[in-house]
Amino acid sequence: MEGLTAHGRGEAFDYLIGERTTESALLAEQTAAAMLLSARHPVISVNGNSAALAAREIAALQEACGALVEVNLFHRTEKRVALIENLLMNAGARVHSGDAEQLLPLSHDRAWCRRDGIFSADVVLVPLEDGDRCEALVSLGKKVIAIDLNPLSRTARRATLTVVDELTRALPEISRACRELPAADRGRLLATVDNHYLLSEAIREMTARLSHALD
Amino acid sequence: MEGLTAHGRGEAFDYLIGERTTESALLAEQTAAAMLLSARHPVISVNGNSAALAAREIAALQEACGALVEVNLFHRTEKRVALIENLLMNAGARVHSGDAEQLLPLSHDRAWCRRDGIFSADVVLVPLEDGDRCEALVSLGKKVIAIDLNPLSRTARRATLTVVDELTRALPEISRACRELPAADRGRLLATVDNHYLLSEAIREMTARLSHALD
Repeated sequence: MEGLTAHGRGEAFDYLIGERTTESALLAEQTAAAMLLSARHPVISVNGNSAALAAREIAALQEACGALVEVNLFHRTEKRVALIENLLMNAGARVHSGDAEQLLPLSHDRAWCRRDGIFSADVVLVPLEDGDRCEALVSLGKKVIAIDLNPLSRTARRATLTVVDELTRALPEISRACRELPAADRGRLLATVDNHYLLSEAIREMTARLSHALD
Repeated sequence: MEGLTAHGRGEAFDYLIGERTTESALLAEQTAAAMLLSARHPVISVNGNSAALAAREIAALQEACGALVEVNLFHRTEKRVALIENLLMNAGARVHSGDAEQLLPLSHDRAWCRRDGIFSADVVLVPLEDGDRCEALVSLGKKVIAIDLNPLSRTARRATLTVVDELTRALPEISRACRELPAADRGRLLATVDNHYLLSEAIREMTARLSHALD
């Protein structure tokens, strides 16, 4: 139920950026690729909505960047974890499964992750993550890449890098950049990460579209 | 399922107006009250989301303005109509029930309404209506009052008057205006209905909030 209303909120913001990958979103996607490729231990953290919307795109990104794929749920049950892991494996992903521990500085069910997975990661890609988990990962010193259509969300503002784009457009662009971006460009992108600029640009796109909507 | 994603889209736009009744929304709510009170045959058209969110507020508005309350569903089954009518009656509404006919210029299930209800109305309040139904009602010569948090939606732009406010804030304000607004003010409001201005003001609120969001 909460996943559906969250999806609706995303649809509204997607409408405001014109349901397309903006120039600043593409820059963010290329930077995300550079961060994933330069990481020592990159992990893609997958929740229910991400798996439902983009299991194949997640598998393709894993192929392109070599990251671990680990399931992390807000509403965690063993049954839901197994269902979503199966969905990802059927789409071609290699899922980092097995015993989890309560390792993140969060209350209750949300603290769980795998010691040799997300807990050891230096770069974590979190599509559609909530603000608390994003902050917890940042507080552990990790570089967090968020994909979030709302540039004002706590997730978007706390992440190291935020891709303001729809998930099934964003993931293939990150995969493409992993395959095609020259090493020199990757180095330049890593040296100039500026999340405030990326969020400002997303907001500028939205206000421009709103301002001319009644023309 | 569709109701939940629609609710999520509304939440995003509500966030952009600051989750409060703006000055222009209050003007729209007072104008809505004036239109309902001056109508010959006002009807409140209720769908599943409206009934779930605001059955009591709908009953209170009926008390304040004397409109018929009629259930109209996008996904119409006799069972769903009966469930929602019961929900409204338990909240204190008098529901205009009975046989419906396919009278609106719309395809399939969405054409249904009651000959002595919505089909005969001169003013119809449609909280959370879809664009096609709103257009169909306008094409029949009715004055349509929409409540819609998205000022860019087809419903918002085609309605005679659009209240850009959250349903459970909007309905009590319309009821209050029905009880308290002097007749002279009502006449002035009816003479100056300007939906383009109201939508422009809602958009101005949203762009202002977006522009300062990162400060």
